[in-house]
Amino acid sequence: MINLPETGQKRIVIIGAGFAGITLAQRLMKMDVQVVLIDKNNYHQFQPLFYQVAMSGLEPSSIVFPLRKLFQGKSNVFIRVTEVERVDREKKCLHTPYGHVNYDYLVIGIGADTNFYGNENIQKHAIPMKSVSEALYLRNAILEDYEKALTVQDYDTRQELMDIVIVGGGATGVEVAGALAEMKKYILPKDYHEMNCKEIDIYIIQSGDTLLKGMSAESAIGAEEYLEGLGVIVRKNVRVKDFDGKVVYMNDGSTIRARKVIWAAGITGNKIGGLPEDAVVWGNRIKVNQLNQLEEDPNIFAIGDISYMETEAYEKGHPQVAQVAIQQGKHLAKNLKRIMKGETPSPFVYKDLGSMATIGRNRAVVDLPNYKFKGFFAWTVWLLIHLFQIIGVKNKLFVFINWVWNYFTYDQSLRLIIRTNSGKVEPEEKEKIA
Amino acid sequence: MINLPETGQKRIVIIGAGFAGITLAQRLMKMDVQVVLIDKNNYHQFQPLFYQVAMSGLEPSSIVFPLRKLFQGKSNVFIRVTEVERVDREKKCLHTPYGHVNYDYLVIGIGADTNFYGNENIQKHAIPMKSVSEALYLRNAILEDYEKALTVQDYDTRQELMDIVIVGGGATGVEVAGALAEMKKYILPKDYHEMNCKEIDIYIIQSGDTLLKGMSAESAIGAEEYLEGLGVIVRKNVRVKDFDGKVVYMNDGSTIRARKVIWAAGITGNKIGGLPEDAVVWGNRIKVNQLNQLEEDPNIFAIGDISYMETEAYEKGHPQVAQVAIQQGKHLAKNLKRIMKGETPSPFVYKDLGSMATIGRNRAVVDLPNYKFKGFFAWTVWLLIHLFQIIGVKNKLFVFINWVWNYFTYDQSLRLIIRTNSGKVEPEEKEKIA
Repeated sequence: MINLPETGQKRIVIIGAGFAGITLAQRLMKMDVQVVLIDKNNYHQFQPLFYQVAMSGLEPSSIVFPLRKLFQGKSNVFIRVTEVERVDREKKCLHTPYGHVNYDYLVIGIGADTNFYGNENIQKHAIPMKSVSEALYLRNAILEDYEKALTVQDYDTRQELMDIVIVGGGATGVEVAGALAEMKKYILPKDYHEMNCKEIDIYIIQSGDTLLKGMSAESAIGAEEYLEGLGVIVRKNVRVKDFDGKVVYMNDGSTIRARKVIWAAGITGNKIGGLPEDAVVWGNRIKVNQLNQLEEDPNIFAIGDISYMETEAYEKGHPQVAQVAIQQGKHLAKNLKRIMKGETPSPFVYKDLGSMATIGRNRAVVDLPNYKFKGFFAWTVWLLIHLFQIIGVKNKLFVFINWVWNYFTYDQSLRLIIRTNSGKVEPEEKEKIA
Repeated sequence: MINLPETGQKRIVIIGAGFAGITLAQRLMKMDVQVVLIDKNNYHQFQPLFYQVAMSGLEPSSIVFPLRKLFQGKSNVFIRVTEVERVDREKKCLHTPYGHVNYDYLVIGIGADTNFYGNENIQKHAIPMKSVSEALYLRNAILEDYEKALTVQDYDTRQELMDIVIVGGGATGVEVAGALAEMKKYILPKDYHEMNCKEIDIYIIQSGDTLLKGMSAESAIGAEEYLEGLGVIVRKNVRVKDFDGKVVYMNDGSTIRARKVIWAAGITGNKIGGLPEDAVVWGNRIKVNQLNQLEEDPNIFAIGDISYMETEAYEKGHPQVAQVAIQQGKHLAKNLKRIMKGETPSPFVYKDLGSMATIGRNRAVVDLPNYKFKGFFAWTVWLLIHLFQIIGVKNKLFVFINWVWNYFTYDQSLRLIIRTNSGKVEPEEKEKIA
């Protein structure tokens, strides 16, 4: 038993505190229902800025927000930090390590994780960036390798430690590449007077013939020009076939020596047991009708990246982006209200507000539905929209101060290799570089 | 080989980037010498505020500072992030996992770590707080246990998860106890509407008959009154004999059920191999003459917490506090200059500037050499002095904003359980609570 009071209210259980889950919970908390929000973390993460955490530009705490603070004073909201093992649809309950939870309505918003396309080597050696913990891991890996590089005389080994390969030319890949190129240009020469920073190569690998798939051709070309202007080596129409931790093997036979491969090449839905087999479709997404409802079970809904809804405008499902998640969260809140009142719910219609990506200081590309632009103005639009979306006044303030500070000092100052440590475990045996 | 250029300058190797090490390095970097600074972390830590990191009041990044940023642009300073295995005094070199480093002068400033007095159970189960990583670990442990407590119906198990025992009545213990008492009073009731926060007990255990040993009787009594006013259970004249992870056993036969024991009961010098046997004295400190020099080796010096110098005023060595470390760092810089010029170095004389401790908002005790005071004014003095000592303008700014924010909102907002995670390791098997 997970210790929830029986209040006589309908109980709506939401799994996942991403954009979809918290948007829904924030609307439901004002209604006469019991809301149970389950997540494996005690915070909501703002995915679009993970790359700035990895690049030492922001602290994790500036872009995540404690769930309990978000729902402070809402006595009908119950937060449980745990994982869900499986759904029991017959008994209308969930199983967790702490016991079971009954639901009247279940909403699944568990999002997606990195897709390694079944390649175990890549999964073992490459670095994903789908959580703030992974972003911190990447930050530590980059900083540690530069420290190691200083102690190595062999040219090839040093190159391996210094060069970085980014796989995937979507927004994440492009933004990481831009940020790394600026780190190479502005920060490393100041920090490492002993290092020849010109030796650092940054690659971005895109399997298709254009970056930023899904954005306009103008924006894709703009982003590529910006990256090349910053010295990033853009390789298109080539796939990474394998990676053994030291060498990246391409499908065209070429290789790149590098220890760090940042894997931003695709996502796949997170798994949850107990759903009907037919409900899980390609990309591990959960197929829903236009009410975000499982065809097989009217009490179960899926929203956000994990959901797959075919509509006239989106025959292959919606893009897996924050805007869809937020709009589905809002819409489902209204529909649940209607359903509980015995009214007819309305189908979800996605309103595309546009998309954007930033490539270093003063440079971004923006696609609005009817208008495309790039450059300094696009960059300020990118900053403002992201700043506005971050939850919490103090977080906004800290991100803003960090951005202003970094802009004028050309210096991301959070270059810290910090781990959580009980102080009791022996330090892992050091990898010795011959 | 650790890749250091031979410049013809004298090479001074400093092990440890604590208060002593960086104070010395910052003075040496302006001289015509080669400075090699070795630390296992790539940052300097501001110890006096670890407890605020543990209490979710500050981010680690606000109280640590990247070493490379501290020495940016100093081409005679070489930083190496590694551990030192041992000193070879005959060859005048150090051994590290990356190879050896020769020195002309060696300065040891490796500080001290938690002393568990040989009790393996306590070492295994209690939580120390001598690094920012350990402080983060403690933060996570506290937050996780409150989350778990919500899912537990058994009264005793819930108590174990909620109660906290602090061992050691020095400044760290007193400051942690005060901060925990305020968290119980102001924050937890808002975050956990389901929890009866009055069930939380906070204990502080002091083996002697007074808190804040080393401070004045007025301050010790003042601190105790403040703590009791905040509801902390102060137990004096009793020692913790054992702790099995669930029950704390005292030497008077009493017990306390608690899963979290914060161990701030003493320190012991960090170890380094290769020193003469007689040089290492009680508390694992390195015995030095009044020049901070090993009697047995005029090329080796020890400063800060690790050093042990008997003087007329301090017959049993100096207190192991930041002020001594800073003053020894400054003094040794002058002495090394004199020694290299062939002049006579001068003996170190410690100037006690006073000591202080804070116990929650608006309350602190301050002992100046000729004047003692407490209360709100003492608290503002505590804040200003600590703010002033933190390295970096941005760190000062962020700590200041956090303090002002927390003061007016009664809310430490960094209640986040964040780990560094490669995304590839299976989550550790969950401890199941029956």
